[in-house]
Amino acid sequence: MLSEHVLEELRAALGPRGCLTGAEVPEATRSDASRTGRTLPQALLRPATVEEVSQAMAICHRHGVPVVPQGGMTGLAGGANPGPAAVALSLARLTGVEEIDHEAMAMVLRAGTVLEVAQKAAEAEGLLFPIDLGARGSCQIGGNIATNAGGLRVLRDGMTRDNLLGIEVILADGTVLSRLTKVVKDNTGYDLRHLFAGSEGTLGIITRAVIRLRPLPGPRATVLAALPDFAAVLRLLALARKSLPGLSAFEAMWADYFALNQRLLGQTFFADPPPFAVLMEADEGAALEAVLEEALVEGIVSDALLARSMAEARRFWDLREGHAMDAALPGLINLDVSLAVGQLDDFATACRQALLARFAQAHVSFFGHIADSNLHVAVALPGGGTEAEAHQVDDIAYGVVRDLGGSISAEHGIGNLKRDWLGHSRSPAELAAMRAVKAALDPKGVLNPGKVLPTG
Amino acid sequence: MLSEHVLEELRAALGPRGCLTGAEVPEATRSDASRTGRTLPQALLRPATVEEVSQAMAICHRHGVPVVPQGGMTGLAGGANPGPAAVALSLARLTGVEEIDHEAMAMVLRAGTVLEVAQKAAEAEGLLFPIDLGARGSCQIGGNIATNAGGLRVLRDGMTRDNLLGIEVILADGTVLSRLTKVVKDNTGYDLRHLFAGSEGTLGIITRAVIRLRPLPGPRATVLAALPDFAAVLRLLALARKSLPGLSAFEAMWADYFALNQRLLGQTFFADPPPFAVLMEADEGAALEAVLEEALVEGIVSDALLARSMAEARRFWDLREGHAMDAALPGLINLDVSLAVGQLDDFATACRQALLARFAQAHVSFFGHIADSNLHVAVALPGGGTEAEAHQVDDIAYGVVRDLGGSISAEHGIGNLKRDWLGHSRSPAELAAMRAVKAALDPKGVLNPGKVLPTG
Repeated sequence: MLSEHVLEELRAALGPRGCLTGAEVPEATRSDASRTGRTLPQALLRPATVEEVSQAMAICHRHGVPVVPQGGMTGLAGGANPGPAAVALSLARLTGVEEIDHEAMAMVLRAGTVLEVAQKAAEAEGLLFPIDLGARGSCQIGGNIATNAGGLRVLRDGMTRDNLLGIEVILADGTVLSRLTKVVKDNTGYDLRHLFAGSEGTLGIITRAVIRLRPLPGPRATVLAALPDFAAVLRLLALARKSLPGLSAFEAMWADYFALNQRLLGQTFFADPPPFAVLMEADEGAALEAVLEEALVEGIVSDALLARSMAEARRFWDLREGHAMDAALPGLINLDVSLAVGQLDDFATACRQALLARFAQAHVSFFGHIADSNLHVAVALPGGGTEAEAHQVDDIAYGVVRDLGGSISAEHGIGNLKRDWLGHSRSPAELAAMRAVKAALDPKGVLNPGKVLPTG
Repeated sequence: MLSEHVLEELRAALGPRGCLTGAEVPEATRSDASRTGRTLPQALLRPATVEEVSQAMAICHRHGVPVVPQGGMTGLAGGANPGPAAVALSLARLTGVEEIDHEAMAMVLRAGTVLEVAQKAAEAEGLLFPIDLGARGSCQIGGNIATNAGGLRVLRDGMTRDNLLGIEVILADGTVLSRLTKVVKDNTGYDLRHLFAGSEGTLGIITRAVIRLRPLPGPRATVLAALPDFAAVLRLLALARKSLPGLSAFEAMWADYFALNQRLLGQTFFADPPPFAVLMEADEGAALEAVLEEALVEGIVSDALLARSMAEARRFWDLREGHAMDAALPGLINLDVSLAVGQLDDFATACRQALLARFAQAHVSFFGHIADSNLHVAVALPGGGTEAEAHQVDDIAYGVVRDLGGSISAEHGIGNLKRDWLGHSRSPAELAAMRAVKAALDPKGVLNPGKVLPTG
């Protein structure tokens, strides 16, 4: 239990609105969207300024109180879930776009700013905020950076870290580490920015950031193509990369995934579900049609649909996003792995076989951002499955990832959900180096303990 | 002095070709291209395999012998210069492209591979190695990564770190930390890759890497434009960014720089040297001409030349690269700073004024990769100047950088040349965090001591 005198210090620093305890602590602090959390934190800290975040950390550090940073609680790996001894620290009051610099093409904003708010602020000034994901309406930019979020623009604009110019972080002891630079070239010592991005709140609490903006893209052309095999998918990808500098999506669906989602949507895209379907999007409409034509002539593509309207493009995306599947298959498990692109179908074959050997009745299907080497595995167990069974699914699939030298997390991060498998993707030497860095920056281990790093 | 028994251990591990001492140690080990070095190392280690690098580090670590990694010795900040107590470790025998993966668009190569060799290997397979700089014929990819080299492709393809997929590093104690991944998305714990990139050999010795390849670009259009003021430069940049997704160069020359280099080349690009000249290069020839036309109509550009041949484009680049100036002005000092693009002319004005106040007879001129927020300052002191005067130039210019919140090194790095000014661009909190990371990964301080981090 948090002692009353620590709480008094926190209340004095943050005010009554800034420190909630007991029945005031909202249920939402228990868990992110992974629903791996179970416990309420000891308190919810809600600092409204950078200085208050710093003071809160200094107090907690002095008393050895663990602190779990919380953003929009949309994470999928349990990174923001508090243990029973921790206080949660929400960035939700530290919001707002501070500056849009047109010349530097950069936005300075506070960590609690909701992604969609940042996107709209950029768009209002004729610019593109280069990060986008499904949770845009509730996730926060601080959380996007802390988890190095991927999402829908990675192929064109990179992961969150690739768009991060400057960062301000509060260290475990309350030190303010601020470098809100707008420059793209900066070779002055170690790149601390990339150390905090993706560290899931275990090295520091992000309070502000500078994000690089892009020119607003024009309208895009969208196609849905049917392909005979994975070799054809790779050939189409090579063609598209060569001819379409403005390629912004190259999404593949394996046959099971396509067939199920086509059926659930009640629409017929291809009457005979093809072995592979690919959704492509690019700036260059005419060049995209030329690529398709060449692919049809060469037998790479067996059939193709060109979206004639934004509504039709939306239907292609509905198929790919598979929301109908989420609704129809409660308890659906969605894994998020990464392998060299040439290995993706080998992985799918081996992973399907291994999962069906254990769960003969499971529905296993594959889809992903192929050009980014990112594959999702959707697994529905009969009756939804138990938590122990879901754990077995993880264990089987991540074992195949390990055997092929892949990454157990392309986008979602590690949190506490994947922590025990981190060694499948990272060597003992890498884990030791990570632990050394953690100990150097947070020697008392107060920041988000138990996340990311497996216990030695 | 290195004791004989340490040398014996090293010779036993590396063989006679792998451990040179005394008169065998080449003069070239004294200094990189910055000519800031003065001393020969105690020995030159030349491991030929990753295992030998590991063994060499383990031996040196055990005996507390400082090790200075050396690549192609083309650095401009003294990062590879040994102190008198150190041994140098050259990667020159650890060379070769191991794999080109067309599907993953990735090359696996050893650290000592000369950049141009890697470029040609990629080109032979129809792909682009996305890193290029003037020193391509002698610099090595390991050094490019260790210094996070910039160069000629940054606007399109980013700095070296932005093209780094996987890395293998030998830690101070000889531990092999290997993650030669080809995937672009990997959220499995801390991003150690970005910690080693740009750390200038102070955290580990890079032995192998995976670099992302790109499609080979087609022919480019090149123009040289005259502009009335810096506001026009910024307006042209905005136009170019909006209309030219394939913009690959946007280089500005201030009047002094343009006039001097035009005179030295003995060619007339613009009879009246304009206040600003901009060299632009883009994939899209027609769109580039349209941008120019709009800029002419709006008075953004007062005159423009379109290169009608590759030879003419080369002449534009000769002007911009200013090699004639290097030859005509011995002892020319070239600083490499970064500021938010909107501040670049304010910086140029303040910096010129401050330098001329101290050196009334100096020639001071400015040019740079504007779209990358990177400015070079060329300073020629009367009679070439002394080393102490060059130091004063640094001090004056970096003082102006500090006042404007810029970076004292956009590309060249810190080494020992800029170390004492690192605090102009990084806060005490940042320096403390860097020192903590250094101590965590190299507690005995054997790796490249005295580089990058100022003594506390």
